[in-house]
Amino acid sequence: MFSNLSAGALGLSLDHPTAIDLAAQHGFGGVDPDPGYFATLGGTAAVAEHAAAVRERGLEWGLAGLPVPLDAPAAEFREALVELPSALELLRAAGVTRIGTWIRPMHQARDHRTNWRLHVGRLALVAELLADAGIRLGLEYIGPKTFWSVERFPFIHSLRETRELIAETGASNVGLILDSYHWYTAGESAADLAGLTDADIVSVDINDARDDRERDEQQDLDRRLPFDTGVIDLESFMGAVRASGYSGPVKVEPFLKDLAERPVDEVLADVSARLERAVSGGSASA
Amino acid sequence: MFSNLSAGALGLSLDHPTAIDLAAQHGFGGVDPDPGYFATLGGTAAVAEHAAAVRERGLEWGLAGLPVPLDAPAAEFREALVELPSALELLRAAGVTRIGTWIRPMHQARDHRTNWRLHVGRLALVAELLADAGIRLGLEYIGPKTFWSVERFPFIHSLRETRELIAETGASNVGLILDSYHWYTAGESAADLAGLTDADIVSVDINDARDDRERDEQQDLDRRLPFDTGVIDLESFMGAVRASGYSGPVKVEPFLKDLAERPVDEVLADVSARLERAVSGGSASA
Amino acid sequence: MFSNLSAGALGLSLDHPTAIDLAAQHGFGGVDPDPGYFATLGGTAAVAEHAAAVRERGLEWGLAGLPVPLDAPAAEFREALVELPSALELLRAAGVTRIGTWIRPMHQARDHRTNWRLHVGRLALVAELLADAGIRLGLEYIGPKTFWSVERFPFIHSLRETRELIAETGASNVGLILDSYHWYTAGESAADLAGLTDADIVSVDINDARDDRERDEQQDLDRRLPFDTGVIDLESFMGAVRASGYSGPVKVEPFLKDLAERPVDEVLADVSARLERAVSGGSASA
Amino acid sequence: MFSNLSAGALGLSLDHPTAIDLAAQHGFGGVDPDPGYFATLGGTAAVAEHAAAVRERGLEWGLAGLPVPLDAPAAEFREALVELPSALELLRAAGVTRIGTWIRPMHQARDHRTNWRLHVGRLALVAELLADAGIRLGLEYIGPKTFWSVERFPFIHSLRETRELIAETGASNVGLILDSYHWYTAGESAADLAGLTDADIVSVDINDARDDRERDEQQDLDRRLPFDTGVIDLESFMGAVRASGYSGPVKVEPFLKDLAERPVDEVLADVSARLERAVSGGSASA
Repeated sequence: MFSNLSAGALGLSLDHPTAIDLAAQHGFGGVDPDPGYFATLGGTAAVAEHAAAVRERGLEWGLAGLPVPLDAPAAEFREALVELPSALELLRAAGVTRIGTWIRPMHQARDHRTNWRLHVGRLALVAELLADAGIRLGLEYIGPKTFWSVERFPFIHSLRETRELIAETGASNVGLILDSYHWYTAGESAADLAGLTDADIVSVDINDARDDRERDEQQDLDRRLPFDTGVIDLESFMGAVRASGYSGPVKVEPFLKDLAERPVDEVLADVSARLERAVSGGSASA
Repeated sequence: MFSNLSAGALGLSLDHPTAIDLAAQHGFGGVDPDPGYFATLGGTAAVAEHAAAVRERGLEWGLAGLPVPLDAPAAEFREALVELPSALELLRAAGVTRIGTWIRPMHQARDHRTNWRLHVGRLALVAELLADAGIRLGLEYIGPKTFWSVERFPFIHSLRETRELIAETGASNVGLILDSYHWYTAGESAADLAGLTDADIVSVDINDARDDRERDEQQDLDRRLPFDTGVIDLESFMGAVRASGYSGPVKVEPFLKDLAERPVDEVLADVSARLERAVSGGSASA
Repeated sequence: MFSNLSAGALGLSLDHPTAIDLAAQHGFGGVDPDPGYFATLGGTAAVAEHAAAVRERGLEWGLAGLPVPLDAPAAEFREALVELPSALELLRAAGVTRIGTWIRPMHQARDHRTNWRLHVGRLALVAELLADAGIRLGLEYIGPKTFWSVERFPFIHSLRETRELIAETGASNVGLILDSYHWYTAGESAADLAGLTDADIVSVDINDARDDRERDEQQDLDRRLPFDTGVIDLESFMGAVRASGYSGPVKVEPFLKDLAERPVDEVLADVSARLERAVSGGSASA
Repeated sequence: MFSNLSAGALGLSLDHPTAIDLAAQHGFGGVDPDPGYFATLGGTAAVAEHAAAVRERGLEWGLAGLPVPLDAPAAEFREALVELPSALELLRAAGVTRIGTWIRPMHQARDHRTNWRLHVGRLALVAELLADAGIRLGLEYIGPKTFWSVERFPFIHSLRETRELIAETGASNVGLILDSYHWYTAGESAADLAGLTDADIVSVDINDARDDRERDEQQDLDRRLPFDTGVIDLESFMGAVRASGYSGPVKVEPFLKDLAERPVDEVLADVSARLERAVSGGSASA
């Protein structure tokens, strides 16, 4: 696995070339691809050339976002399918192999089973289109109760459910996005991660939680940097990830507004060190 | 349909002969059977004789409770199955045709799909055993969010889910217990009840809700007598029940502790009048 | 319900204007729409005008074919979704409200549950797109064992399974295409049709079967005209259809090659009379 | 893994002490337990003593049959549950840890999904009762098309379906009974066995098939001894079993009537050698 710079997940507005420069400068192992930037390059050949240059700087690609709204009305979902091949063509040209999305953990009108069937059907379809492009799809479940309990019908909010959903898609290119924050808020432990392999995991996020709130009171958008409070047992979490043989990107997604107000080099040095500690399994202070 | 006296649902401790006397006195159309009392009568012939006497007083049987803990550990569930035939034999001798239970709307460990499969499997088994005894099984879903949201995995808490569960049992003798309180707290309307037939409904409860709380703040055990606050639209609810051609018992289950402290005749006169109003569709003040 | 002329189902190569003329001449109550012909008319206004002319001749629209291959590879399915709106726009302009397809009853690689999930997912998506256009979707199950048993994994081949599939789509605009030939070969009876309503049925086919073969030896493409051999109990079948209050088209689909070799007026007079007998419930000889 | 003597699977009528003697004599690594014999020993202490003596002869226990008819009418299934604890008590006293049954691959009335739900529900219940007794449950799917295609609704007849069924029971003590004959007739290959672990497999059967019939014409009860015709690729099959780290019994179940007519020592020497070849992965001629 490798530390990955995802400017968006840090709340930083960096254009793609700058993000690449900073990722290389601060010792990240990878950087998120930017499909919008790819689209400005004028074709697959230019995208491939750009990607080669990024690789030459020692950077791997992190995760691109899925450009399909999984639970939108059918007309909107179809519209996204119409546009999908051109997006995939650019990602493929760049050598991007990981796309991800999250599963909305509740719905006002669709009960659990109805929502499940919608997700299985649409995920199976999208996954096959992605497989044709050599791309894997990662699914992130959302753990905080303050999120999944606010509408009439709670939906998937645990690792176990997500794994069953993935199995039901019948697709071998769908896997998990593991986020320590969801793992913690879902009340899960290292035992829940046992038995996972590299093939089961598409991306990993590490975050910590506030230490002045109970687990069920934690808010999805109010987190802490990894190793900050120690509320989340990142040693157990990363130990299980390491045991899986995971080979992909590890990033931070803290939803901390003040990061954007601090000097970017200071922020990235800090984040890079924390990721390094997580990835290496070392105990060096962040 | 007919008004039914369920002493237990009113929180009254009446022995069975007294309940029968009071039901007849206060003009109820039916009374709940009492399996414990039946067991003291010394055999099926005596139970049949007792039931004939009850019928002669113009009373039909309401609903007996299901003596099987649906989501208990397997050993406990099996134990209940061992005992079930002797219980069913007495109910059958009495001519009881309706048994009911409620579905626990959440679980700390079993996610929605796992819990669903457990319920489908056990309900199908129990339903077939009941069918052999000529008895129908009613399932009551629980609506209040303050109930279904308190553990890790919310489960069935709507009419739609309950109907799908019933369909999946594959049993023609399983139906609904409709309770206006759950219908209201689940955010349902008359449209949700459209298309139901007498074969779909095993029992009906009518209750009203407190008028000083939002729907999502209502507590399962803190209700009001029907037509009390007017928070629940009982006209729409009973209109839909009437449209279904429902022919079974209608009772009140208010969980009001003070009922047990008032004179029983006063309470039963009041309850009987409210049920009469609901059953007849009349607008007479309760 | 009304008798419907489906030239394609009779194996006749009639252009659309001729089919309309012949339908009117021979007393059919409806005729299948021809999307290919609509596309030549130069826009929705011309299609609407054409449809008005057809209606003025006393003809209703039968069923159009679904232009989406339900179990194709994802890329091909997506391609059909790209094209779908323009096809639906013309059908909508014509006032066509019924589209149909059949369910392939076996698969060499997809087991029953995997195939089920694929169908639920894709049908739900397609149904919602059709609903947006005011169109209902009919699904035809295939009954002959000589068809469903020839690959590794048999799939849906009964009414019960089809109804469960439709329920799982969650779509209120999906219903059945009932074909007496499949009903017979599936070993079903009038009891299986009990309880159906007009909302459950999108189209009805009536055919008879060869009288020199056992039910399990019947071939899907070797049928007889309705009321020909009497092997299929069309009185029971149509009695149940009538009891449902069905208001749509009834057609014949005999897969008899020699129909195309007989004078077309003779064939249509014959078919019209047989349909009339079925629709009216009369006993007039065909 | 170890070679196992299952007299019943060979069609031999051996009483339990004789089977144990012969198993030891002919170098088998295990022998099937005999619950009927256990029941004659007069209690758990005597059974434990008997089991200790068997172990001292170097023999492990093979597989006991599940004394519960999984798809029987509910009353009959319940009756078996009533009797189950006393049977499990004796098996537990003997240290038996493996029980097995097969899945009937078709049904005249229950469609695939209905039958699936029945199996999931009953298996989950039985598995939990077995888990309480420290016993694992093995499920054998049936591959021959001449078997699964003879009734209206084919059911599970592949490894993939069986694994999904096991997953849906939610039980960690349910696994596979792998039989090379079903693996072959189901058209499966070593790839289908990839990824299995010891925890996934409860028992293994090896058999060969007639060489004068196509795969789809093979009969379930007309097999050949392993390594006889070479129709079934036992090297690939056992290679995959070995790769799983399987630690349990391997037996032969050829349904060959003439085995009972040959001298028992000759038969057992032959069977033991064939099993030894399979277990050791050696290429010594049988």
